[in-house]
Amino acid sequence: MTLTLDDARRIIAAAEARADEIGQPMNIAVVDAGGNLISHVRQDGAWIGSIDISISKAWTSRAFDIETKDLGENAQPGQQFFGIHTTNGGRVAIFAGGVPLSREGAVVGAVGVSGGSGEQDQSVAEAGAAAL
Amino acid sequence: MTLTLDDARRIIAAAEARADEIGQPMNIAVVDAGGNLISHVRQDGAWIGSIDISISKAWTSRAFDIETKDLGENAQPGQQFFGIHTTNGGRVAIFAGGVPLSREGAVVGAVGVSGGSGEQDQSVAEAGAAAL
Amino acid sequence: MTLTLDDARRIIAAAEARADEIGQPMNIAVVDAGGNLISHVRQDGAWIGSIDISISKAWTSRAFDIETKDLGENAQPGQQFFGIHTTNGGRVAIFAGGVPLSREGAVVGAVGVSGGSGEQDQSVAEAGAAAL
Amino acid sequence: MTLTLDDARRIIAAAEARADEIGQPMNIAVVDAGGNLISHVRQDGAWIGSIDISISKAWTSRAFDIETKDLGENAQPGQQFFGIHTTNGGRVAIFAGGVPLSREGAVVGAVGVSGGSGEQDQSVAEAGAAAL
Repeated sequence: MTLTLDDARRIIAAAEARADEIGQPMNIAVVDAGGNLISHVRQDGAWIGSIDISISKAWTSRAFDIETKDLGENAQPGQQFFGIHTTNGGRVAIFAGGVPLSREGAVVGAVGVSGGSGEQDQSVAEAGAAAL
Repeated sequence: MTLTLDDARRIIAAAEARADEIGQPMNIAVVDAGGNLISHVRQDGAWIGSIDISISKAWTSRAFDIETKDLGENAQPGQQFFGIHTTNGGRVAIFAGGVPLSREGAVVGAVGVSGGSGEQDQSVAEAGAAAL
Repeated sequence: MTLTLDDARRIIAAAEARADEIGQPMNIAVVDAGGNLISHVRQDGAWIGSIDISISKAWTSRAFDIETKDLGENAQPGQQFFGIHTTNGGRVAIFAGGVPLSREGAVVGAVGVSGGSGEQDQSVAEAGAAAL
Repeated sequence: MTLTLDDARRIIAAAEARADEIGQPMNIAVVDAGGNLISHVRQDGAWIGSIDISISKAWTSRAFDIETKDLGENAQPGQQFFGIHTTNGGRVAIFAGGVPLSREGAVVGAVGVSGGSGEQDQSVAEAGAAAL
């Protein structure tokens, strides 16, 4: 019920195709049900600061079974989870681009994307998730 | 005057019972007077990102002898403790779910809960604390 | 195919019973197939420095599907894995007390024990593992 | 003169083919001239503790323009670089499996492999490097 490397590659390929359409190179990461990295890809020209963020977004989405953009809304000053971004050794990402991956109703992993605007990252992550 | 493992288990059992009533699986942690972990439990299906947070909430509540939700109010932008969440290696939790445990007027430990909304976490932590 | 909290509690109870026989209080931790903590217990009087070590031993045993004492033999100076103890953020434990847990031939988690001599830790971990 | 994602994929494919021959699933990582990750792959069943190590081996090989097994010989107790494994935040790997990648006499990146014995990791890394 977890993800295979073949699953991860299909997800990444779909995400890459969407990034190419947008014209913004991206970092794309896929984690399994345990939150552990299966595969990461940095497209040519994508930000090196986004390597870590793409992996953190994927981890965060699995760690809390939530899209990072939704977690982010609850993590703003004054909201119920403000401060969550410094927990777990700082690897909780609270902006758009992380999307959980489900099979038969169970979260089995997640995809994280970083390299552009929040809207672009989200769009690429959703394209990846749709390929599962 | 510190907590025993038996105390921790009684606290955790009461917290689990409350989590079961709510229907939201939780991570529950109890620390002693030194802020050191006595016991942790992750209920089946609870978020893996909340393991660290439950322990951090318990530690924070003992470290400052305060409920984490009260600390959180003082840790918002513009408030007197804004920024405290990045101190102590990032393990200061500033949202609801951590409650100090007292005996004869002295704080002897704390319980930390993570796995649902702030309100749910707080309710489960209070149920645990009431069992001491 | 992963471990439940009930499994973890049964493993911990068996480990505690063995620790009581030996007369040396222990920290005992159980992780799931993803290496994530399910439960931790520190018996009264057990070393606080062993909280982290018990969790690291459990994680290590699952991370490499090996007993930590066997990994340790390969991690001595001059051996093929010397230096592995500083990888993974320093949470690779290379001394006795971590044992993988298997079901139907697949590793589904691990138990880690710390609080006494290497021999004592190993004995308590094996007693825990036998209860699965 | 640095590596592209296409280069990384060709290197990883060659490394995977060699791992399949050996029958030991591996983590394989490729970094660019800046030491920054281009791509990582975890084959199904490969150790989760080797995710970090494969990336560290690749980073180390580029960071010092050396195979990690050769660095390891100089990093044993009593040798000139003993202790280097705890520098750079602990991400210096000093055992076999990391190989620099060169073009026209300049190191342009590195490949790191982790998942089996030192000999197996080295063999898979060399197969990857040969594909550049």
